[in-house]
Amino acid sequence: MNVLIVYAHPEPKSLNGSLKDFALKRLQDAGHAVQVSDLYAMQWKASLDANDSIERQANERFFPSRESKHAFENGLQSADIAREQGKLMWADAVILQFPLWWFSMPAILKGWVERVYAYGLAYGVGEHSDARWGERYGEGKFAGKRAMLMVTTGGWESHYSPRGINGPMDDVLFPIQHGILYYPGFDVLPPFVVYRTSRIDEENYGAVRDALGQRLDDLWTTKPIPFRQQNGGAYAIPALTLRDDLVPDRVGFAAHVE
Amino acid sequence: MNVLIVYAHPEPKSLNGSLKDFALKRLQDAGHAVQVSDLYAMQWKASLDANDSIERQANERFFPSRESKHAFENGLQSADIAREQGKLMWADAVILQFPLWWFSMPAILKGWVERVYAYGLAYGVGEHSDARWGERYGEGKFAGKRAMLMVTTGGWESHYSPRGINGPMDDVLFPIQHGILYYPGFDVLPPFVVYRTSRIDEENYGAVRDALGQRLDDLWTTKPIPFRQQNGGAYAIPALTLRDDLVPDRVGFAAHVE
Repeated sequence: MNVLIVYAHPEPKSLNGSLKDFALKRLQDAGHAVQVSDLYAMQWKASLDANDSIERQANERFFPSRESKHAFENGLQSADIAREQGKLMWADAVILQFPLWWFSMPAILKGWVERVYAYGLAYGVGEHSDARWGERYGEGKFAGKRAMLMVTTGGWESHYSPRGINGPMDDVLFPIQHGILYYPGFDVLPPFVVYRTSRIDEENYGAVRDALGQRLDDLWTTKPIPFRQQNGGAYAIPALTLRDDLVPDRVGFAAHVE
Repeated sequence: MNVLIVYAHPEPKSLNGSLKDFALKRLQDAGHAVQVSDLYAMQWKASLDANDSIERQANERFFPSRESKHAFENGLQSADIAREQGKLMWADAVILQFPLWWFSMPAILKGWVERVYAYGLAYGVGEHSDARWGERYGEGKFAGKRAMLMVTTGGWESHYSPRGINGPMDDVLFPIQHGILYYPGFDVLPPFVVYRTSRIDEENYGAVRDALGQRLDDLWTTKPIPFRQQNGGAYAIPALTLRDDLVPDRVGFAAHVE
């Protein structure tokens, strides 16, 4: 199978760097083809702007989504964007690997999402009607592919527990797992999270590595998070609110998992 | 009073650009001093890296937080970072204004947070003991200052309602409002959100502008979101889990609001 690792840490000798090297080798040893987008090494341009098109449709006012659509449809995207889209289409599984900075992905990776996720590729896909609201949340161009987050945190696991002060890790990652990965169609596997990174020394690094290795070995068999499909009948269209009879007592992120 | 607007949209003629201009004038007309950090116009460097220090402490391996601490303590930060920190210290209120892209702030603004929020300024502040876990979540260098988000979305309000498919807006913004603003001490006001931006025409732009004007007039009197203070007794230390007797049936983000 083909695996794309999108990796966002500025220091190759970091824990993240070691885990990335380990993951690459583990997957290759298992016979998979692997590409790594090492965003810092690539000096990835993080900010989406009017220069992301070779030739703009309108020069008077920059509408990000309209220009993205125009550039994607007409082969007018910057080469760096088109190249990453090619890797995405090639991949059977995508791993986003990053340290959790301020409760989200590093800016350089957020900018990868914003620029590579073109209109017509990751959003703006499919028809809107009384029965369907575009192909998204379980449908879309990346349907059939798997995705997983590999995340490190300085904070302790208890800080991210159901009643931990930072919020539960599932909820902290929901905007990424549901909003960035499930939205364009990926099946999203439970994340691989390493907490309290300052405590990871040579001795317990082995345990982290082994746990990651197991997750990578199981990449094709692990059960995805059962997010609800948008167009499967669970949501009213176009309000996109969950049907009243489904988990009627539940609100918030957790309501969107079956 | 002094107000800092940190603004992240690539197009001056956008809805965001108009609202920024309106907010600037409204605040100035009320007698406030206002600075605007227009990140796209400033060509703000989004990616945190080793070049953020004029002179590094260690050149062999880049530890982001250690280098941030060293540079902040010794006046070795890049000029762009120090300048934004000066604005933050000057401000009585800070407004972060941005379009919601992929359920979070644009990369350029995330990179502003990552680079400007130095160790010793926004985190790594205060002592850790049996009774206190640093000065954060309600304490910290920005205590006494107010903060508010001004956000636009393409999606409809119902999509961000308690049972809406994108998740409730309060939860989508929690990692920013609680994790980025409350963490270093800001009092966080309820956000000003404009939904379904494609529907905003000249006619209903007036209503949006008036609603924003009211929020700006009330900037000093609006009641902040009552997030729970970390060191006020509500959390076990160092586990930082909410005390068992407080809202015992509640988990997730909502548990951290009184």
